[in-house]
Amino acid sequence: MNTLSLMRSAAFITLMFASASASAQALSDLKPSAEPLVLQSQGSFFVGGRTVETENAGWSDMKAIFGEPFEAGKVLIDQMYVQFQTPPKPTHTPIVFMHGGLLSSKQWETTPDGRMGWYEYFTRQGFPTYMAEQTGRARSGFNATIFNQVRDLKIAPSEQPRVYLGTSNMAWKVFRFGPKMDEAYPVQQFPLDHVDEFYKQVIPDMFETQVPSLLDELISPETKNPTVDNFADLAHELGGAILLGHSQSAGFPTQAVLKAKGGIKGIIQLETGCFSNLTDDQVKTLAKVPILVMVGDYLGEHPDAACVKEMDQIKAAGGDMTFISLPDVGMKGNSHMFMQDKNNLEVADLIIKWVSEHVDKK
Amino acid sequence: MNTLSLMRSAAFITLMFASASASAQALSDLKPSAEPLVLQSQGSFFVGGRTVETENAGWSDMKAIFGEPFEAGKVLIDQMYVQFQTPPKPTHTPIVFMHGGLLSSKQWETTPDGRMGWYEYFTRQGFPTYMAEQTGRARSGFNATIFNQVRDLKIAPSEQPRVYLGTSNMAWKVFRFGPKMDEAYPVQQFPLDHVDEFYKQVIPDMFETQVPSLLDELISPETKNPTVDNFADLAHELGGAILLGHSQSAGFPTQAVLKAKGGIKGIIQLETGCFSNLTDDQVKTLAKVPILVMVGDYLGEHPDAACVKEMDQIKAAGGDMTFISLPDVGMKGNSHMFMQDKNNLEVADLIIKWVSEHVDKK
Repeated sequence: MNTLSLMRSAAFITLMFASASASAQALSDLKPSAEPLVLQSQGSFFVGGRTVETENAGWSDMKAIFGEPFEAGKVLIDQMYVQFQTPPKPTHTPIVFMHGGLLSSKQWETTPDGRMGWYEYFTRQGFPTYMAEQTGRARSGFNATIFNQVRDLKIAPSEQPRVYLGTSNMAWKVFRFGPKMDEAYPVQQFPLDHVDEFYKQVIPDMFETQVPSLLDELISPETKNPTVDNFADLAHELGGAILLGHSQSAGFPTQAVLKAKGGIKGIIQLETGCFSNLTDDQVKTLAKVPILVMVGDYLGEHPDAACVKEMDQIKAAGGDMTFISLPDVGMKGNSHMFMQDKNNLEVADLIIKWVSEHVDKK
Repeated sequence: MNTLSLMRSAAFITLMFASASASAQALSDLKPSAEPLVLQSQGSFFVGGRTVETENAGWSDMKAIFGEPFEAGKVLIDQMYVQFQTPPKPTHTPIVFMHGGLLSSKQWETTPDGRMGWYEYFTRQGFPTYMAEQTGRARSGFNATIFNQVRDLKIAPSEQPRVYLGTSNMAWKVFRFGPKMDEAYPVQQFPLDHVDEFYKQVIPDMFETQVPSLLDELISPETKNPTVDNFADLAHELGGAILLGHSQSAGFPTQAVLKAKGGIKGIIQLETGCFSNLTDDQVKTLAKVPILVMVGDYLGEHPDAACVKEMDQIKAAGGDMTFISLPDVGMKGNSHMFMQDKNNLEVADLIIKWVSEHVDKK
């Protein structure tokens, strides 16, 4: 057994014990700040949405309660839920966080091991801070009629949208906790002793209820994904905001800029979100908005591979695009989920520095 | 046309215009308090959850991205997401809000017309305030494997759980905005000029992914609904809390007390939640916890009909059970959604008065 294997085994054993003893400690794990948080305002609202007719609302067995079946009627879909809090004296441009695949806005709140998340931290640092929940996920709801139509044999099961589930072995590898399930990278910033608390954040992803293909969405700068329209409308309605996406949503800020509704003051892409098929007109449009791409560790020798072409194009068009690989600036061991990693506030400070220099000053 | 019909028609016409002009004004409708909100802490965590195996995670078409299909693995289900904020100097017993059917914790936040919701108001009034999201809804996720099994023809479509959808005509009548769709009651506290913003809160209800029958759950004091176990565990972990349910969840606090985990200092049932089939032992257990039932307007001549038997039993066992019908105490025109009605903070004050007198003093 070589040294690396030994370390991995040791990490694995430690992890197994930690995981077992950490169960049901979510509440007692909380580590709130000693400093009170002062908010000028807080609340929530929706952006977008449209009304459609359904004939399969699911209540056919409930006539006894309501006196009528309520099977047919209008439902509102494609809305986007947004939560916000603002500091008394904002010192930065408003920022909107958009979570990734299989996740909700919970991603930006308290970390799995009970530390402060970015929602609170950015507010404390002077940002009017918004969390937008992807249309089709969590409090934004999803278009559900087809599931009842399949159940009632009106539509073939093969027509039913896939529901993407985040298994723990998928999360472990794709989110780069380690090379294989239950084996951590030797340097790992993610709080793996509370990984079960992270798995609780992972919820069914109804992306395919909105667009024909998740894969196409990840590579196409143009999209009919209603989340992107809502994201663009939100920046416009706010009268100016930075849009930040992560992983599945990393490309959404760029797609939103290309909707040409105005108001997007900066693009922040966490864990890629670059496009290799932009038209000259699209490059010109994007060159007007400062762009930051940030990635964690363990992405191989060329973590910027997917972004090189777009960066060259944006820079040639006079734009401002920055790529930060965390290990290259001295932060080792960050996972895909660096907003929850042990050094999450140091990573946030890097982003805030970029905002101060590239967005606020303009 | 009699006077009542005339009034209804007038209301209808007014409403149609208001509804049309209110679209896309969700953000600009916000009416934040002029007073800053000071929090000792804020955050979120999960209660409960268990790991199950899935062989249908939905990724069979994505091998190109991940290098492996990730179809099989472990997923975490039955967890309950909880959001909280606490004032610097709490003056009341902690309270946990649980939303109703077809809704999420959004129910307790900013109202459809942009006013302060109960989450913020109770915090400002000195309550450590928690919002628990039903297991199976919104950020708590749901057990989704069976939907992919149906899609892949491994299980018959008829086995697929119903998804309950809230149509606007159902909401209008069941939530007592008016006697029939688009016709308001002559006195109506719900902000119907923003009813479209309310419909955006209404999301698919996956209740049937957890229990065989929603109907049975509403009438049975015993339950296997994981939300109720999580609700009971939360009160216990908090070391004492008032549990508040509404509509679909109005009976959950009672069901949670009967789990006998301790820590439930008070039960608040909005819009019924009474049981007519309690055993003597159950009555004895419930008689140890102060209970408040509160209902809105337009429930007929005997709004307490579903609660008379339980109240008699609780009182005979020496318990403390209060029934408040809002029109009987001078508040006219409240809908099923009185936490969002125009007089929502006055209604909250009634609840806070009850808490001060029946729970805090004990």
